[in-house]
Amino acid sequence: MKIRVYYEDTDAGGIVYHANYLKYCERARSEFFFQEGLTPVIDGAHFVVRKMDCDFLSSAFFADELDVSSSIDVINRASFIMIQEIRKDDKLLFKTKVTLVLAKDGKPKKISENIKDMLQSLFAKIDK
Amino acid sequence: MKIRVYYEDTDAGGIVYHANYLKYCERARSEFFFQEGLTPVIDGAHFVVRKMDCDFLSSAFFADELDVSSSIDVINRASFIMIQEIRKDDKLLFKTKVTLVLAKDGKPKKISENIKDMLQSLFAKIDK
Amino acid sequence: MKIRVYYEDTDAGGIVYHANYLKYCERARSEFFFQEGLTPVIDGAHFVVRKMDCDFLSSAFFADELDVSSSIDVINRASFIMIQEIRKDDKLLFKTKVTLVLAKDGKPKKISENIKDMLQSLFAKIDK
Amino acid sequence: MKIRVYYEDTDAGGIVYHANYLKYCERARSEFFFQEGLTPVIDGAHFVVRKMDCDFLSSAFFADELDVSSSIDVINRASFIMIQEIRKDDKLLFKTKVTLVLAKDGKPKKISENIKDMLQSLFAKIDK
Repeated sequence: MKIRVYYEDTDAGGIVYHANYLKYCERARSEFFFQEGLTPVIDGAHFVVRKMDCDFLSSAFFADELDVSSSIDVINRASFIMIQEIRKDDKLLFKTKVTLVLAKDGKPKKISENIKDMLQSLFAKIDK
Repeated sequence: MKIRVYYEDTDAGGIVYHANYLKYCERARSEFFFQEGLTPVIDGAHFVVRKMDCDFLSSAFFADELDVSSSIDVINRASFIMIQEIRKDDKLLFKTKVTLVLAKDGKPKKISENIKDMLQSLFAKIDK
Repeated sequence: MKIRVYYEDTDAGGIVYHANYLKYCERARSEFFFQEGLTPVIDGAHFVVRKMDCDFLSSAFFADELDVSSSIDVINRASFIMIQEIRKDDKLLFKTKVTLVLAKDGKPKKISENIKDMLQSLFAKIDK
Repeated sequence: MKIRVYYEDTDAGGIVYHANYLKYCERARSEFFFQEGLTPVIDGAHFVVRKMDCDFLSSAFFADELDVSSSIDVINRASFIMIQEIRKDDKLLFKTKVTLVLAKDGKPKKISENIKDMLQSLFAKIDK
């Protein structure tokens, strides 16, 4: 997924404000679903970020075009872990390991085999 | 109401990103209610921005402390109009005329005499 | 220009937060330049929003795909006026008249014939 | 430091959008400097986020008033590590370990004894 950096994304330091890389990752996760005509809301449950370990390796600037790549690391009972990386050309700018929990009304929910298969196939497709 | 400018508010031009002045005005409108132990949601209805005429007169910078002043211009059947101004020290940076509609489930709703009185008294208090 | 609505764009009312329509318009203005391999920064001068009259006509929601259309109304000595509209399918959600000033080091700058021609041709192309 | 949750901070899930907790932490870090009449920019160098390990434990909602607490974990040659926690009343909602690098023109810079002392005293004061 391609992300363009606009004025809104930058700060007075002239670079992309650090929290915006998390937004870009969320856009990419949602876009997987949209591309298949789906939404990331499944029977009223959705994927909530539970943990995010982030490395900010280098800066992006106004007008840059960035690439977000995403892959599934592991799928557990009610959560799954993804690795997401943001690059400019081939340079790695940002890397994160995200734990997402399927939750409904604030409570974790078992990820059914159906959803597991869907996640696997969505992200496998994008990975190529 | 005092607003501090943080990194998140600025852009690569080194100044506050223009759309953020609208956020500051909304914070001020909400804060009137919070200060009285109320919320801007009334029986499931809330105030939706319908129109905003904005003058961006001068720039604010990182670390600035800004003042938002707000006054009611007129209250109509299902809407009301406010004037909001943002200053740094005594310098006017931003001025807007906002039309807000009371809406529930996407439909305009009559502003009852009760709510009219509440709006008048909330904003009169702040005005001093 | 197509804009996708992500979680970051919505608020607790379930709709796109009003100030974000201004961001979408700015993205569209910048993207005109990027598409031609240009940037909206010209010899250290850039276009600053001086005035924005905004009509919020209807709401956009999570996952919506929006269209931003832009046209030049008039070009003055140091400023120009654009009309920008945001639609979902054919429904008009947002309309604004924006006055942009070419400024360098905080001071207005004459728009040269070169830049005038560039603006005309950039936006004429997109208009089709 | 007290943070109020406004509409702009929430998303269509009705809760604070996850990336905004990072903004709140940055506001708190900057505010330490502002409270002492300082800014977080030191001889043209500033503190850049290099790493952030984030736990999103529970959700915050519109109108909530949150507390951000911050303490220094360790100060190294050109970086330091902070622990920041966000609470609502006494409930822990968010916890992060942040590594900040002092950088100038994109390059890490030694943290002088002066700055070390300033950091220690700034954050010690707030900690009480």
